[in-house]
Amino acid sequence: MSKKLNQLKFVVIGGGTGSYTVLKGLKNYFKNITAIVTMFDSGGSSGILRDEFGYLPPGDIRRALLALSNEDSNHIFRELLNYRFEKGNGLTGHNFGNLLLTALTDISGDEVEAVKHISNILNVKGKVLPVSTTNSNLIAELEDNTIISGETNIDIPKHDKGFVKIRKLWLEPEAQAYEESIQAIREADFIIIGPGDLYTSIIPNLITKGISEALNNTNAKKIYICNVMSKFSETHKYYASEYLREVIRYSNTDIDYMLVNNKKINNDSLLKKYADEQALPVVIDEENLKHIDTKIIESDLINETHLIRHDSEKIAKTILKLIIDVI
Amino acid sequence: MSKKLNQLKFVVIGGGTGSYTVLKGLKNYFKNITAIVTMFDSGGSSGILRDEFGYLPPGDIRRALLALSNEDSNHIFRELLNYRFEKGNGLTGHNFGNLLLTALTDISGDEVEAVKHISNILNVKGKVLPVSTTNSNLIAELEDNTIISGETNIDIPKHDKGFVKIRKLWLEPEAQAYEESIQAIREADFIIIGPGDLYTSIIPNLITKGISEALNNTNAKKIYICNVMSKFSETHKYYASEYLREVIRYSNTDIDYMLVNNKKINNDSLLKKYADEQALPVVIDEENLKHIDTKIIESDLINETHLIRHDSEKIAKTILKLIIDVI
Repeated sequence: MSKKLNQLKFVVIGGGTGSYTVLKGLKNYFKNITAIVTMFDSGGSSGILRDEFGYLPPGDIRRALLALSNEDSNHIFRELLNYRFEKGNGLTGHNFGNLLLTALTDISGDEVEAVKHISNILNVKGKVLPVSTTNSNLIAELEDNTIISGETNIDIPKHDKGFVKIRKLWLEPEAQAYEESIQAIREADFIIIGPGDLYTSIIPNLITKGISEALNNTNAKKIYICNVMSKFSETHKYYASEYLREVIRYSNTDIDYMLVNNKKINNDSLLKKYADEQALPVVIDEENLKHIDTKIIESDLINETHLIRHDSEKIAKTILKLIIDVI
Repeated sequence: MSKKLNQLKFVVIGGGTGSYTVLKGLKNYFKNITAIVTMFDSGGSSGILRDEFGYLPPGDIRRALLALSNEDSNHIFRELLNYRFEKGNGLTGHNFGNLLLTALTDISGDEVEAVKHISNILNVKGKVLPVSTTNSNLIAELEDNTIISGETNIDIPKHDKGFVKIRKLWLEPEAQAYEESIQAIREADFIIIGPGDLYTSIIPNLITKGISEALNNTNAKKIYICNVMSKFSETHKYYASEYLREVIRYSNTDIDYMLVNNKKINNDSLLKKYADEQALPVVIDEENLKHIDTKIIESDLINETHLIRHDSEKIAKTILKLIIDVI
């Protein structure tokens, strides 16, 4: 490659706070960023609105818009997008940004139009696209043959199978990738997958029909960012290699790089809180990783102030360094 | 007076669709307009939010903001402010603009701050102020001694006393006028009261403590715009003089001019629809009006396309003509 850094095209695939963190960091260094976000959320304010209005669940789009918004302007509008009603019959728990996306979708007749309106108001750098506009439901089959239906039931298990691994994940009905998202993947220079809940934020994108094909028909370098902490019921006690193998398996494509945190977490009281929810630091199992044709980049990627989370700036800098080596 | 037309300061007192019509027309000719709106609404989306959040009812403020907004810009935002949810448990019937005002009030900690934020986004010409920030309840005593409590119960009678006149109207607790509203009245060149539901949109402003005093301490010319149609339970079979006398009685001030429609309504099917709800064209009872020290200006002020309503442009032009004669 011989492109200038600021001409590079990025695609970030995921949803939730993981994508938020990556987008928030990247936007300080690059201007051509497309966020492709999962559309199969079925819980919380998003899930209720999806059920009641039949539109796409707005939560992941809202978070990506906020991440890419200009932080210097529209302070009050950014606060509004995050505002959650804490009173009111039927309003309690609803996020204002989700209601805004729902009303705008109803007015403009189209979820993507609604996103464009908010992008204008927020002065968003880059683009936020749904991975699909198919109204599909996420289904998981566990290793003991139990079937779990619905994103929220997989994410926050309402069953007692949290220790049992997910054998297979699919969408009903099959979701068709949004055309502009396919195009963005094909034209990208770098594609960043994750971090995020593996089976509810990351893989749902990869199993959307058309995404795997696009990932195999792009010249982009593909980077997967591994989670910092394992998650009960989704990726209980998963090693780094298991995350990577699942991403490769469901996307059916090669991953060029995996970024993984190697900073030891020292905050014992935080670790204890996570351990209470059966969440443990992800172990980098180098022996297993050797057998996968992906370059592993270990670095300090985290921030352990209030939660154990990826750090926007550390991720952006690690990606920036990788890119400078590559292009 | 020797002021230039575009330097004149206007205050419009009222609420609901009446004030909306006046503001929408005036803003095309004048730039210094303050809308002072009633804050004692207790029904619908507004009333529910007032009950649940304890903030001022947002409906009348929202309509005034829309009236004064720049119609050429922010088309989608204006649609949003008018949008009503028609689905969703607890959302159905809520107006999006009311939810926006509620969320902004919660974020900024102040109803008037919230109004300023929306004014900025909508590029509002002029200012919208609450008549009061006291959380008061409207009470009516009928001529048969019945007491009706709450704006919505007076406006849409849930009792069988629609034919009985309102003897007395007051607020519990006594509402204190918002300081900036008092100031606007004192500094105005012209004050326009009405049109609108006499006992639920107009007089509630006039009985707010401080308003009558301000009206008596201003050099402004005071114009009352009489309703076109009478209203069952509020002003059943009221003549024009009765509207005017009530405005003078409750405001305890002189009214310089009354604008009253003299165009005969020809649309029989529309008249029939109104008659079904006991609403009749207001009769100009010239004999009685002669005894009141207010100049009566009769003109065609209406639009009878879908409803029998005042016409924004006709009202603005009539006021403009009156002003040119006066200054």
